Amino acid sequence: MKAEIISIGSEILRGQITDTNSNFIVKKLVELSIDVEHITAVSDNPESLLSTLKLALQRADLVITTGGLGPTEDDITYETIAKALNLKLIKYPEAEDHLKKVLNKIKVEISPSNLKQTYLPEGAKIIINQYGTAPAMILEKDNKIICSLPGVPREMKKLVVENLIPYLKEKFPPSVIKKSKILKVTGLGESSVNELLHDYINNQKNFSFGIYANPEDIQIQVTTQAPTEKEVDKLLQSSVNQLSKILGNYAYGSGEQTLEEVVGDLLKNKGFKVAVAESCTGGMLGEMITRIPGSSKYFQGGVISYNAQVKEELLKVPSEVIKKYGEVSRQVAELMAEEVRKCCHSDIGISITGIAGPGGATEKKKVGLVYMALADGKKTITQKHQLFGNRQLIRLRSSRRALNMLRMYLKEVIKDDPTK
Amino acid sequence: MKAEIISIGSEILRGQITDTNSNFIVKKLVELSIDVEHITAVSDNPESLLSTLKLALQRADLVITTGGLGPTEDDITYETIAKALNLKLIKYPEAEDHLKKVLNKIKVEISPSNLKQTYLPEGAKIIINQYGTAPAMILEKDNKIICSLPGVPREMKKLVVENLIPYLKEKFPPSVIKKSKILKVTGLGESSVNELLHDYINNQKNFSFGIYANPEDIQIQVTTQAPTEKEVDKLLQSSVNQLSKILGNYAYGSGEQTLEEVVGDLLKNKGFKVAVAESCTGGMLGEMITRIPGSSKYFQGGVISYNAQVKEELLKVPSEVIKKYGEVSRQVAELMAEEVRKCCHSDIGISITGIAGPGGATEKKKVGLVYMALADGKKTITQKHQLFGNRQLIRLRSSRRALNMLRMYLKEVIKDDPTK
Repeated sequence: MKAEIISIGSEILRGQITDTNSNFIVKKLVELSIDVEHITAVSDNPESLLSTLKLALQRADLVITTGGLGPTEDDITYETIAKALNLKLIKYPEAEDHLKKVLNKIKVEISPSNLKQTYLPEGAKIIINQYGTAPAMILEKDNKIICSLPGVPREMKKLVVENLIPYLKEKFPPSVIKKSKILKVTGLGESSVNELLHDYINNQKNFSFGIYANPEDIQIQVTTQAPTEKEVDKLLQSSVNQLSKILGNYAYGSGEQTLEEVVGDLLKNKGFKVAVAESCTGGMLGEMITRIPGSSKYFQGGVISYNAQVKEELLKVPSEVIKKYGEVSRQVAELMAEEVRKCCHSDIGISITGIAGPGGATEKKKVGLVYMALADGKKTITQKHQLFGNRQLIRLRSSRRALNMLRMYLKEVIKDDPTK
Repeated sequence: MKAEIISIGSEILRGQITDTNSNFIVKKLVELSIDVEHITAVSDNPESLLSTLKLALQRADLVITTGGLGPTEDDITYETIAKALNLKLIKYPEAEDHLKKVLNKIKVEISPSNLKQTYLPEGAKIIINQYGTAPAMILEKDNKIICSLPGVPREMKKLVVENLIPYLKEKFPPSVIKKSKILKVTGLGESSVNELLHDYINNQKNFSFGIYANPEDIQIQVTTQAPTEKEVDKLLQSSVNQLSKILGNYAYGSGEQTLEEVVGDLLKNKGFKVAVAESCTGGMLGEMITRIPGSSKYFQGGVISYNAQVKEELLKVPSEVIKKYGEVSRQVAELMAEEVRKCCHSDIGISITGIAGPGGATEKKKVGLVYMALADGKKTITQKHQLFGNRQLIRLRSSRRALNMLRMYLKEVIKDDPTK
């Protein structure tokens, strides 16, 4: 079973948008063990599209198109598919019903150009698009399958998950199920992860592994297959467990879990409240923590002490300390964390002070030098980092390190107190 | 002159990465008036690649490949191009010299698999890759041109700008120069922008326009062509000026300018300092303002008053006001802005308080209700918004609206005081 994806739209060929739809579809097909050999982006020129469709139908069993289903003259997907397969376009009354309902809701009269969207190639199994106006379809002919989806990513994704995938699963019950699971790692570089995992990975015959570094963390993708979904899940879980064991506390979560979510769960679990004092990150750490719905249960707020005066007045850092050690120093980080903990009535205070650059460096303190501290009322722990990257990357990495410092702290606390 | 781009690499066809290289290359070609009719992603299967190359050489004058130049067995770009064109692979001593130099620097011995990277199709004009090990090339044969570039985006981009574009400019001095300029708009919806510009756009014959909405703003791309770069620039500027006139204060910048940069310039111009008091955005507004290097000149800091207690104590919002009007209210927003202005010793205080959802709504106050205020010591202005989208979008839109409120305020101040 070979598949091919065609992204239709001159916006892609003019560089106005990047085709991200194909990536979403490929991932879904890979899970069903369907191989994709070609992805093509083609303009809405009728001849180019026709020859691209014909070629795809020659070399693949399943052709998936996205885009070109709108009401304008440029939208020629259905008429070109009909031409490629020698089919007529016919009116689908259910498409017109849906269109009328949608346009009625937004109080727009149906126009002749809208009506174009109600014509599909004969024999098509229409898919009414609950997320927009353009109907999608699945068409079987001469042992080939064509599926046409709208180009709007949000609509396309819904229809893939709700219609295309169930159709394919029923039509071609996969002999093996192939799945991946992602383990997320923070606080280690890519080469260290590689080294730690080298022996384990090389001894696994039934799994494949990918290690991907991004600015926020490192992701390890484990892929395997088995006859049933249950077996695949079990295999994947056992491998993820092994990897987690090797990586210890550096592994913070899996799948869609984010670091701020994991930290939030630990805080809720422990019933702790946290506050932040941010200098070079300007509010980024607070912004990350509050991405999680319900973070008001454990996040009190904080102080953005960008200016020394704010450090002195709101965070009560004595001006002599700033004079003696500098705004970017272990001492100032400690005092910031301790005071924000108190003034925001929280159990834990976390602070970040650093040089994000490009300016602000001195001979002794280079761009990327960042101090962070965590105070819990009994003790204050600090970390010093020399981070790399541009201004925004240094700020991002600082915030992630601070979140991870909080995660490590909470894990220790929970370990020491098994009742929690 | 027709071009075609081929992205080579099974990672794309397995969904592990999205091909973003093509988008970069297309944009550069569009500027030279070179049309791209197809972009294809193909796996590193030799047969698929060979047929894809042959087809591209049939239908295009210029074929650009990315990827498949590495030292491993999967990297088959050069041998497959040689096969497609009936050429031999020959050793390029300059490639070996470069490779040795690079490997020597990182103290790695040259291996047989590395040496593979020194063989290119005969007749190729080699491009030594100063940003990696894999050499690129431009090959002319039978009135066709093939250019092969590495797949690593950073390396690819450098070689396109430094080698491919100058080569194409010299080989095909463009008869017309085609360029685009982007005008950025905030505070208006896409349909309002469409309506405002409808008449102007329909009366322009020598320009083409694209209107793109994204969560942060709306971008209007104006494209035109002329025999010289100077004339194009002049034409573009005149159209951008016309558009700016129609859009008035909604147009905030052009090209790569960001809203936080524009606001920063206005603050510096006026010599004003600003502080923020953030509730539902959790620090996002502060984070945006501090993205700009040198923002310490005008950004003092602020308070993240996520919790009511922090509003009461750090921002001195009386608990009766919170009880009477609620944390999300015009009254609380006003007091937050006024106090943060004072406690952070700034000229202007800005506040945001709202319901980002999904929880927290009441019958009268729905998810997306956001109040913001701006205090300058003489007066306090407020805005009420009912925003749409998920939690993160509501937070993003709140922060952008607040930044835009600040921009509008500063423009008024500067208008009233022409000495500034």
